[in-house]
Amino acid sequence: MNKKLPIAIILFLLFAKLSIAQNKMVVYQTDFGLKDGAVSEMKGVAMEVSPDLKLFDLTHEIPAYNIWEAAYRLEQTVRYWPAGTVFVSVVDPGVGTDRKSVVLKTKSGHFIVSPDNGTLTLVAQSLGIDQIRQIDEKINRRKDSQKSYTFHGRDVYSYTAARLASGVITFEQVGPLLPVQQVVSINYQKAQFSGKTIKGNIPALDVQYGNVWTNIPDTLFNQLKPQFGDVVQVTILYKNKSVYQGSMPYSQTFGEVAEGKPLAYINSLLQLSFALNQGDFAKQYSISSGSDWSVEVGLK
Amino acid sequence: MNKKLPIAIILFLLFAKLSIAQNKMVVYQTDFGLKDGAVSEMKGVAMEVSPDLKLFDLTHEIPAYNIWEAAYRLEQTVRYWPAGTVFVSVVDPGVGTDRKSVVLKTKSGHFIVSPDNGTLTLVAQSLGIDQIRQIDEKINRRKDSQKSYTFHGRDVYSYTAARLASGVITFEQVGPLLPVQQVVSINYQKAQFSGKTIKGNIPALDVQYGNVWTNIPDTLFNQLKPQFGDVVQVTILYKNKSVYQGSMPYSQTFGEVAEGKPLAYINSLLQLSFALNQGDFAKQYSISSGSDWSVEVGLK
Amino acid sequence: MNKKLPIAIILFLLFAKLSIAQNKMVVYQTDFGLKDGAVSEMKGVAMEVSPDLKLFDLTHEIPAYNIWEAAYRLEQTVRYWPAGTVFVSVVDPGVGTDRKSVVLKTKSGHFIVSPDNGTLTLVAQSLGIDQIRQIDEKINRRKDSQKSYTFHGRDVYSYTAARLASGVITFEQVGPLLPVQQVVSINYQKAQFSGKTIKGNIPALDVQYGNVWTNIPDTLFNQLKPQFGDVVQVTILYKNKSVYQGSMPYSQTFGEVAEGKPLAYINSLLQLSFALNQGDFAKQYSISSGSDWSVEVGLK
Repeated sequence: MNKKLPIAIILFLLFAKLSIAQNKMVVYQTDFGLKDGAVSEMKGVAMEVSPDLKLFDLTHEIPAYNIWEAAYRLEQTVRYWPAGTVFVSVVDPGVGTDRKSVVLKTKSGHFIVSPDNGTLTLVAQSLGIDQIRQIDEKINRRKDSQKSYTFHGRDVYSYTAARLASGVITFEQVGPLLPVQQVVSINYQKAQFSGKTIKGNIPALDVQYGNVWTNIPDTLFNQLKPQFGDVVQVTILYKNKSVYQGSMPYSQTFGEVAEGKPLAYINSLLQLSFALNQGDFAKQYSISSGSDWSVEVGLK
Repeated sequence: MNKKLPIAIILFLLFAKLSIAQNKMVVYQTDFGLKDGAVSEMKGVAMEVSPDLKLFDLTHEIPAYNIWEAAYRLEQTVRYWPAGTVFVSVVDPGVGTDRKSVVLKTKSGHFIVSPDNGTLTLVAQSLGIDQIRQIDEKINRRKDSQKSYTFHGRDVYSYTAARLASGVITFEQVGPLLPVQQVVSINYQKAQFSGKTIKGNIPALDVQYGNVWTNIPDTLFNQLKPQFGDVVQVTILYKNKSVYQGSMPYSQTFGEVAEGKPLAYINSLLQLSFALNQGDFAKQYSISSGSDWSVEVGLK
Repeated sequence: MNKKLPIAIILFLLFAKLSIAQNKMVVYQTDFGLKDGAVSEMKGVAMEVSPDLKLFDLTHEIPAYNIWEAAYRLEQTVRYWPAGTVFVSVVDPGVGTDRKSVVLKTKSGHFIVSPDNGTLTLVAQSLGIDQIRQIDEKINRRKDSQKSYTFHGRDVYSYTAARLASGVITFEQVGPLLPVQQVVSINYQKAQFSGKTIKGNIPALDVQYGNVWTNIPDTLFNQLKPQFGDVVQVTILYKNKSVYQGSMPYSQTFGEVAEGKPLAYINSLLQLSFALNQGDFAKQYSISSGSDWSVEVGLK
């Protein structure tokens, strides 16, 4: 019998394990903006934990207290980073209440440090939950920060993320396991057929350009068998009341319609979206995004 | 006699010395904004000096020419970075005049490269001055930049910071020592008792949320023996004229008051602050910050 | 005969070659803003290619679809980064049309990854074109991204830049050479004498302060033999119609004129510029920038 086989297997398992272990990258998201020192304080604390870390930003322009948008930005971005990256999301209107501080490990091997307040809704559904652990603040809290009870972002979240990303602690040492089904989740219109119409949600705007993004994937929309040039009928609703109704061609490029005219297209996340060519659809029709916004889409 | 003892002592001293030496990290603060290439030019020059540097940002959204706010953002942030970090602050309305370009080394082992125009007021007081040196621009100036007299931020400050942080020059090689007492300092209301009232300053707003921060530390406020729920009487003054008077409960969390109602709390810097729960105190009452703004606080 | 000489020459050539090879630095510029996850997605893809890369930003606040400003920000910034740095510029109103995706290597050894839509106009003229190659998207495109035709910034530009900067591919492996003279170029008023007047363009505003920058270099302006204090006559035109006429002293520092008064000065790029001391020239006189804006300057 070959004694080396078990060693090979062990090495393989070790490698498989390492391949989704932490990779020293930390990506920050907050609603703090960049006008004061808060984000920099968080990063300073991380570099104090380990100068080998590589720190990045997702965005710090989440509208204040907007948990939905925090959830969506993670959903949009996490999958494009290498497995093992640690995300920190601090949009935390409930700071000081009994909301839990957690670290979610997705099935894709990404880690997300966040208050458990709905921020994890979308990545939990799309990437899957491997494990979720509550941060044990007796251990995972910056020394001498006990008196400072209002900046968890720096003293607990960034500190824990830095220790996890750098390997100072393992994921197990974050704290006790939580039941997967207890993750706080926000309700919204899932993308699905209702007769010949597809219903969905507006998770976000493409804010810089004012394009309206839906959560309707191309695979679902394709069941309508749309051809480029076909006319799409669109209703947009806020709390189930119609605020926009219109028709627009399904287009492969913006240039296929005249300047200022509407079009439907598949965006870079492969989801149905609406735009005005060289214009701002959202501003023009006062459309916003979030769990209260939904759409109904059909072919003429 | 043991010959090794002196060596151990030397090694210890060397280590103690190194532990507050430069650590290859540079943190930038300016009033340039991020719409043009100025900040990126500064960083390019630093990476030309040494590709091993790690570059970070404090903020580039200091209101144009607002030296007080530059001073406060440094005060808020520097202490959370590892000793040895080099900060560059370029808020420089006096560029081209005879204001000095300096590097301050704090007693905490942080370095700050800045015009000596008041920017150093608060860190000098709180962290203490180990030494302050005037930048010798004959040596510490980017080659071929002599004709370019209006962008000291790039050609002198970032260049010198990069050379210092990377160890190309020692702190001594920055230039000649300046007398510590000559550091330019801005006047403001220090936090202190006046009878049964505590007077203080509004150094900054928590801009993203509109919370009003004071320079009154929890240790001073605690001498009033406040209990959570006690009513705090607050007067806010601009150039010694009252612009707000009101009462609010001393609260541990924002959720203790109704939405839109005021509260007093201790912020993450352990200083007395005022907020509206899920609202914007500063906008609501037209409160701003700086050396002209002061507060008077008492318990009912 | 000394056999070592050829080796020395080879080593020298190799070193000369390497000194302008890629240096693992990538600098990003877009019109995406920082409110959503788009820039972070681009960076995640780069870190997936190689965790050794160092990622930086030029700006993400280019006004939407403003190719001219993209061109100018590169012109302003590229030269201050080490040779071998790879820039990614994504201002791409023609995405989905037949505009080419290219990598320009300047004679200064910088690389710029961009749609060939005019973005390269100014660096091509000032730094010179060593070679320009069209990105071969059959090879240089993120795996499984073929269906996603609207985010070239992430799937082609950032991916190719990361592979180039990290040495995964050589510059030759980007794709086929293009004829240098085919680079798409935007027309604008070049800086030149017209009688005793100097004509030029307003390539950009110093947006944070509202200063107006021209493309007239100090060397050209100096042919008027200006002395500090001399009165400069300035006309500013939009599409060849005058929108501002005025006189102002040629000044070495802003403080030489009263608060709110205009001055002419040489900016940090060594180009003639106009400002109001502690004011906003552009806002005051509704001046903007771009290829449609020009100036005429003379001494009284």
